[in-house]
Amino acid sequence: MSKNKIYKPKPVSGYTEWLPELRMVEMEWIDNIRTVFESYGFCNIETPSVEELDVLLAKGETDKEIYTLTRLQADEADEKDARLGLHFDLTVPFARYTAQHFNELVFPFKRYQIQRSWRGERPQKGRYREFYQCDIDVINIDHLPLHFDAEIPAIMYKAYQALDIPPIEMRLSNRKILIGYLQGLGVENQTEAARILDKLDKIGGDAVIESLIKDAGLPPDLAQKSLALAAIKTRDDSFVAHVKQLGVENELLTAGLDELSFVVKQLQQQDIPIVVDLSFARGFDYYTGTILEVYLTDTDFGAIGSGGRYDDLAGSYINKKLPGIGVSIGLTRLFGFLMEEGWFKERKRMSPADILVIMPDEERRAEVLETAETLRRRGFKVEMYHTAGKLKKQLAYAEKKGIPHVWFPPFKDGQPHEVKNMTTGEQINSDPNRWELS
Amino acid sequence: MSKNKIYKPKPVSGYTEWLPELRMVEMEWIDNIRTVFESYGFCNIETPSVEELDVLLAKGETDKEIYTLTRLQADEADEKDARLGLHFDLTVPFARYTAQHFNELVFPFKRYQIQRSWRGERPQKGRYREFYQCDIDVINIDHLPLHFDAEIPAIMYKAYQALDIPPIEMRLSNRKILIGYLQGLGVENQTEAARILDKLDKIGGDAVIESLIKDAGLPPDLAQKSLALAAIKTRDDSFVAHVKQLGVENELLTAGLDELSFVVKQLQQQDIPIVVDLSFARGFDYYTGTILEVYLTDTDFGAIGSGGRYDDLAGSYINKKLPGIGVSIGLTRLFGFLMEEGWFKERKRMSPADILVIMPDEERRAEVLETAETLRRRGFKVEMYHTAGKLKKQLAYAEKKGIPHVWFPPFKDGQPHEVKNMTTGEQINSDPNRWELS
Repeated sequence: MSKNKIYKPKPVSGYTEWLPELRMVEMEWIDNIRTVFESYGFCNIETPSVEELDVLLAKGETDKEIYTLTRLQADEADEKDARLGLHFDLTVPFARYTAQHFNELVFPFKRYQIQRSWRGERPQKGRYREFYQCDIDVINIDHLPLHFDAEIPAIMYKAYQALDIPPIEMRLSNRKILIGYLQGLGVENQTEAARILDKLDKIGGDAVIESLIKDAGLPPDLAQKSLALAAIKTRDDSFVAHVKQLGVENELLTAGLDELSFVVKQLQQQDIPIVVDLSFARGFDYYTGTILEVYLTDTDFGAIGSGGRYDDLAGSYINKKLPGIGVSIGLTRLFGFLMEEGWFKERKRMSPADILVIMPDEERRAEVLETAETLRRRGFKVEMYHTAGKLKKQLAYAEKKGIPHVWFPPFKDGQPHEVKNMTTGEQINSDPNRWELS
Repeated sequence: MSKNKIYKPKPVSGYTEWLPELRMVEMEWIDNIRTVFESYGFCNIETPSVEELDVLLAKGETDKEIYTLTRLQADEADEKDARLGLHFDLTVPFARYTAQHFNELVFPFKRYQIQRSWRGERPQKGRYREFYQCDIDVINIDHLPLHFDAEIPAIMYKAYQALDIPPIEMRLSNRKILIGYLQGLGVENQTEAARILDKLDKIGGDAVIESLIKDAGLPPDLAQKSLALAAIKTRDDSFVAHVKQLGVENELLTAGLDELSFVVKQLQQQDIPIVVDLSFARGFDYYTGTILEVYLTDTDFGAIGSGGRYDDLAGSYINKKLPGIGVSIGLTRLFGFLMEEGWFKERKRMSPADILVIMPDEERRAEVLETAETLRRRGFKVEMYHTAGKLKKQLAYAEKKGIPHVWFPPFKDGQPHEVKNMTTGEQINSDPNRWELS
């Protein structure tokens, strides 16, 4: 027994870690998302966990809670160093990366990025202080074809489909529609009005009208007309006809309708379940066109992914116009929610191993090792039991770890190899050079 | 053009990021290491990037430069929170994880972990402030069979072999040999003497003798006898005979010789290039048996990986005896070194795509999309060119990104599909349902 002073560790609020069986599922998720992203030819990048505070704050103060870094044994030399903060999303690092390596990248630059981010917010259900996000973006010089406004959401949907999760749907709009419509109506404070209309689902039509009048200073008839647009929800491109019936003429509005209608048609061709929701505005002001959020159908958990088009994301770091569109899958948020809902409770494999090779006798160690190596060379994942203990104990080990097959090398010269299927209990003679997973 | 104030980003000292073509190689490395680790049935875990400072410092002050975290907009509630620091290796988090989840794990607990760590040290060649390590450890209750002292180094060697790197060799010893021998000689301050003998390669025999006499207080004859052991270097288990010739009797020494001899024989059976070096002691006092380091043969770059056996790693966090053995591959350190040596300069693929599908005409977008999807369903990674621009421009895009095949869907009804091999220039008729990578 240890004679050290013992510090009993406890979980740190807002930070998660999974037991091996759940981490296996999380890895499978990340692998599957990566496979989908790469099937469209997007390259991966990773950026440092930290950025200079000047980079994180280049757009001015952020409402994200940034963690800054200090060396425990700080010395004078540190004061000359730039102040560093952990990134709070993958969008800012991507914009900075694109600006910094501009001359070495090929455009349109198509990248995906699967990394952790950090936010020092108060932990609560669905909010972590450290979490994985899976981002996919494309960025181009001066002009980015509308094609990508349909391709990126389609890739995102395919990525979700590659996970074993409940049904999802995609909520779509185009910022030009709401803003253009409000312009056309002659509303002055369009951003504030859009912010209020965005709450329609949460607070209802009456409260929206009241707030438009009181907080955004709209006359009652304009408030009513604004609500008429925001109330439009369709599952296809019939929203175009509904908007036209409202009789508001505006160039930005027309552009938005054309764009969203192209995107909706492309997604429908691929059987992606969408809801066009014209009240939808999203908070970030850098979005300028297509916007989207993904929800678990029939839950009130909130968005599990989101994104949109931006005209000029990297403008804080480089004097170029770089429009892009990108989405982010909130991996840890979704995974944590489903875990708490008991979604993964059947998953009990604690080892990636396909096979446990039994150790019959220390004298036979070299042969056992060779059996295990033969199976590994053939691509199987193989644990070798470490010591010639009781057979019962060795079988119990395979059972506890959920290893699906147990391999018995010969216990005596001349005996055949045998393999036992732990699910069915069936045990057959076999050959390590021939055996196949059934 | 943006009207924002521009903050031109620059690389942050000690932090690296790779261009897409190098990141592709790094991912391949991580994939290959993971495949080897899993082929032995080790499960993956990830721990949070942060630990409580009390956990990081449970063994007392560390010489590692720890980064602590502070919220930029700190408030009173923060003072109640535990102080957090970024982990400086993966060993401390692994020990803490094992202690914290003790009742939910199956022992021997075999885990690997591939994550970044952080150290706020002054950046220099081969030293980063943020870096990947790939750790593999096994830990058991009360007793861990010697089998793992051979299996873990063998897995590690196989992992290096799965990377495209120059030849390596493994330097091995067992702490019991040097300490037991010094005990047997009657040297009192064995740890200090071992620390000095460990410098033999760097400072030479004369300086070692001098330091043993002056700094460790050894009489000249014991200093000479100590050096006689430390000077033993063999490529097989002949070190046992050399040590026995020195005529020192000690139980710990005998145990160490038996253990190292077992390990050496097992590794030799697997053709692993080893050097037994009895001057080798390693700095960390938690090692108690087998110790090893891996080097690039014929360079003076220093160790690219290391590890060893510890009797009681988690003793600071739980009142159990948990012996283990583990190694760590310094991935970023090795990768960064080889990059600077120009090792990867032939690697010029900036996209994982196998195929670029040409867009002949906007009218044919639906067909082009279908061609790309067909190829994707068959497992190929496929970029679709986003717009019907000039053919020359589309081909130049494939060329620049290093995409090896270009697919031409029919430009007119009735025409066949064609595919061009960008390396050979060969262009043939094909069918997206039949085509295979040559």
